[in-house]
Amino acid sequence: MTAAVLEEYRHKIRTELDRVVDFWLKYSHDKEHGGYFNCLGKDGKVYDELKYVWLQGRQVWMYSRLYRTVERFRKPEILEAAKSGAAFLQKFARVEASRKPGKCAFCLTRDGRAVKVQRTIFSECFYVMAMDELSRITQDKVMQADAESMMDQLVFWVQTDSSSLGRPQLPGDLPVNSMAVPMMLLCLVDQLTEDRPEVAEKYKDLSGWCVEQILQHIQRDGKAILENVTLNGKELPGCQGRLQNPGHALEAGWFLLKYALTKGDVQLQKTAVEKFMEVPFFAGWDKQHGGLFYFLDVDGHCPTQLEWNMKLWWPHCEALIAYLMAYSHSKEPVLLDRFRLIYNYTFKHFSDEEHGEWFGYLNRQGEVVLDFKGGPFKGFFHVPRCLYMCEKLLDSLLDIQDA
Amino acid sequence: MTAAVLEEYRHKIRTELDRVVDFWLKYSHDKEHGGYFNCLGKDGKVYDELKYVWLQGRQVWMYSRLYRTVERFRKPEILEAAKSGAAFLQKFARVEASRKPGKCAFCLTRDGRAVKVQRTIFSECFYVMAMDELSRITQDKVMQADAESMMDQLVFWVQTDSSSLGRPQLPGDLPVNSMAVPMMLLCLVDQLTEDRPEVAEKYKDLSGWCVEQILQHIQRDGKAILENVTLNGKELPGCQGRLQNPGHALEAGWFLLKYALTKGDVQLQKTAVEKFMEVPFFAGWDKQHGGLFYFLDVDGHCPTQLEWNMKLWWPHCEALIAYLMAYSHSKEPVLLDRFRLIYNYTFKHFSDEEHGEWFGYLNRQGEVVLDFKGGPFKGFFHVPRCLYMCEKLLDSLLDIQDA
Repeated sequence: MTAAVLEEYRHKIRTELDRVVDFWLKYSHDKEHGGYFNCLGKDGKVYDELKYVWLQGRQVWMYSRLYRTVERFRKPEILEAAKSGAAFLQKFARVEASRKPGKCAFCLTRDGRAVKVQRTIFSECFYVMAMDELSRITQDKVMQADAESMMDQLVFWVQTDSSSLGRPQLPGDLPVNSMAVPMMLLCLVDQLTEDRPEVAEKYKDLSGWCVEQILQHIQRDGKAILENVTLNGKELPGCQGRLQNPGHALEAGWFLLKYALTKGDVQLQKTAVEKFMEVPFFAGWDKQHGGLFYFLDVDGHCPTQLEWNMKLWWPHCEALIAYLMAYSHSKEPVLLDRFRLIYNYTFKHFSDEEHGEWFGYLNRQGEVVLDFKGGPFKGFFHVPRCLYMCEKLLDSLLDIQDA
Repeated sequence: MTAAVLEEYRHKIRTELDRVVDFWLKYSHDKEHGGYFNCLGKDGKVYDELKYVWLQGRQVWMYSRLYRTVERFRKPEILEAAKSGAAFLQKFARVEASRKPGKCAFCLTRDGRAVKVQRTIFSECFYVMAMDELSRITQDKVMQADAESMMDQLVFWVQTDSSSLGRPQLPGDLPVNSMAVPMMLLCLVDQLTEDRPEVAEKYKDLSGWCVEQILQHIQRDGKAILENVTLNGKELPGCQGRLQNPGHALEAGWFLLKYALTKGDVQLQKTAVEKFMEVPFFAGWDKQHGGLFYFLDVDGHCPTQLEWNMKLWWPHCEALIAYLMAYSHSKEPVLLDRFRLIYNYTFKHFSDEEHGEWFGYLNRQGEVVLDFKGGPFKGFFHVPRCLYMCEKLLDSLLDIQDA
C-alpha cells in the first residue's frame, strides 16, 4: 500500500518537474544579452529586466544538474541554456569597481552592469555552484578552476578575514554565527567533492568545521534551533538571538543528514532528524491554518519581520526534501506522515494549475498575496531542486532506474 | 453640525494623545544608560534593548515640540526626557569608526555602541530635527549650531557629493530622485527656519529645490505619484520606476501644502491637494477591506515587497494630517469626508483600547499581525505627531486657544 502512495507521489512530482522546467525554458531566457530574466509574472511575462546573481547562478546549476543526472533532461537546449547563464556570469558578475578580489554583484542590469553589491558571500557561493556543476558536463578545466579559486576566496572571507567584503567593523556589532554561512559552505563542499577524492581531502577539515558550526544552533537544551548564535555557540541577546527560521533549519537538516549518511555517522543522522527536522516542524507548523511560518521568536514575542506569518514556498520545498530523505533512510512511518502533510499543503496552495510553476508567497490563511513566479529572491531553484531530489528519492525507494 | 463632529474628533484625538504620551513616558525611558528603549511589546514591556537612531531623534523632537507648543505638556518630566535622549545621541550617534564627517549609526546597543550604519542620510536628518527643536527650548546655542552643521553636511551629501556615505559607484546604478530625500530636506528647512528669517534666507533656494524635486514625482499625465524618478524627472524602468507608496505621497502632500500656505502659493496649494492627496488616495485606498495599501505598482503588477498589501499605521497618520490640513484651508466638504473615512478606519483598527498606543501592522483584512507598539521602525513619532497636528488644526477650526 505504501508503494502505491509513493508511486502516486512520484508521478505527480515527475510531471510537476517537467512543467516547471518548461516554464523557465519558455519564458526566462534572454536571447539578446544572455543569462536569464528573473522577474516573471504569473503567466511568465517579464515584469522587470534586472538580473539577480544568486538566481542566475542557481539557474545555471539547476539546468546543469538536471542535464548531468536525469536522462530525460539531457537535451541540447538545456545545456545551451546553462552555458548562456554561465557565460553571462563569467563576463559580468565580478564587480570591477569594488576593487575587492572576486566580489560579485547582487544585481545586474539586463546588459550586465552592476546595480547593487551585498556585503555578504552569497552571490559568490552560487557562482561556485554554477561553475562547478557545469564544468562537470563540459570538462572545462578553466571553469572548474574558476569555481575552486572562488571557493578559496569564500573560505578566506569566512575563516580568516572578512574585511574586504566591505562591512565596517563596529564596536557594537559582535561577530555572529549565522546559520546560512556554514550551511552554504557545507553545500559547496558537497558540490565540489563529488567523485573527487583529492578535493574531498582538501576540504575535509572545512566540512567538519561547518557541521560543528551548524550544531551550535541547537539551543535551549535541544528544544530549539536558533538562526543566530555567538561564535562559541551561546545564545545572543534580543530579537536576533531569539529568531527561528523553520525552513532554514529543515534545509540544514537534510544537508546534515546527507553528509552524515556519506560518512556513516549514526549519531549525526539521528541529530539531523530529531533536532533539525522534528524541532523546527513542531515550532513552525501552523496548527490553525497549516503551512510553515517564515519566522518565529523562541519566547513567543512577535517577530519584527513584517512577513513573519506568511507561508513561503521554499521552506515547504526544504521540508519535503528533508522528510523524504529521512524516511528513505529509516522507513519510520511518522516521517512519511510528515511528508504527506507538507506535500498536501504544498501542492494545494503553491502549485499553479493554470500557468504552471509555483506561487511563492501566501498569507497566513494560505491565499496567494504575491502572484509572480519569479522575483528578486525566487528563481529556478528551490522548486525544481525539491522536485528533482524527491523524484530521485522516490525512484530509489521504489527501486526504479532512471531511463 | 460640522462643529459638533469636529469637537468630537478633537476630544478623541486629545485624549488619545495623552494616552500615547503616557505610554512612552512610562515604558520607554532607559534610566541607566539614557535615551529610550524602542522595542516595546503590546503591554509596553521591552523585548529588545537596541536603540535605533532614527527613533531616538524623533522621540527627542516629539517631546520637545510638545513641551514647547502645547501648554499641558510643558512639564519637567517631558523636558528631562527630551534632554536625556539628546545627550545620548550627542554622545553616541556619530560613528567614529566610519571616519566620515557627521555619519551617524542606524542602530546602537543599549549602552551606545554602534551596531549598524546605513549608507543613507536619515539618521542624520532626525538628529538635526531633535537638536534644533530642543535647542529652541533650552536656548542652547551650541546644540543649535550642532544641528545646523549637520544640516550643512546633509546638503553637501545630497547636492554635491554623496561618496562619503560609503555607497560604491556602480555602472548600472543610475542616480535616482527618491521622494524621501527632498521631502526630508523640506521638512528640515521648515524646522530650522521657524521664526528665524536669516536662516530662512540661507535655505531659500534649498526649499525651492526640494519642492521642484518633489513635483517631479507627478507622472503619467498627472494621474500617478511615483516614488522614484530620474534626476530630470522621467520615469525609471522596472519595478523601481513603477513603485507607488501612497502614504509617502500623502505625507509629501501636507509638507507641500504647509509650505505653499506660508508662501501664499495658490497653484502649489492646489497641486498639493489634487496631486499629492487625491491621486494617492484613489490609487491606495482598498475598496474591498478599507485602509491604505503600503505599496502598489502603477501598472497593476504585483509589487515585489512582501508587505505590499499590509495596512501600516503611518500612512494612515499622514493621511489624517493631510486631509485635515486641506480641509482647514479650503473647507471643501469632500476633504472632510476623506478625513472621516480614514479616521474611522484608523481608530477602529490601530488604536489599542486595552494597553494604549497603536498597533502598527495589520494584514489586508485589518487584523493585527505584529502586535508590538515599538519596533525598529515604529517609535514615538508618527502617532503623536499626527494627533498633535490634528489637535492643533481642530483647535484652529473650532477657534479654541490652547490653555
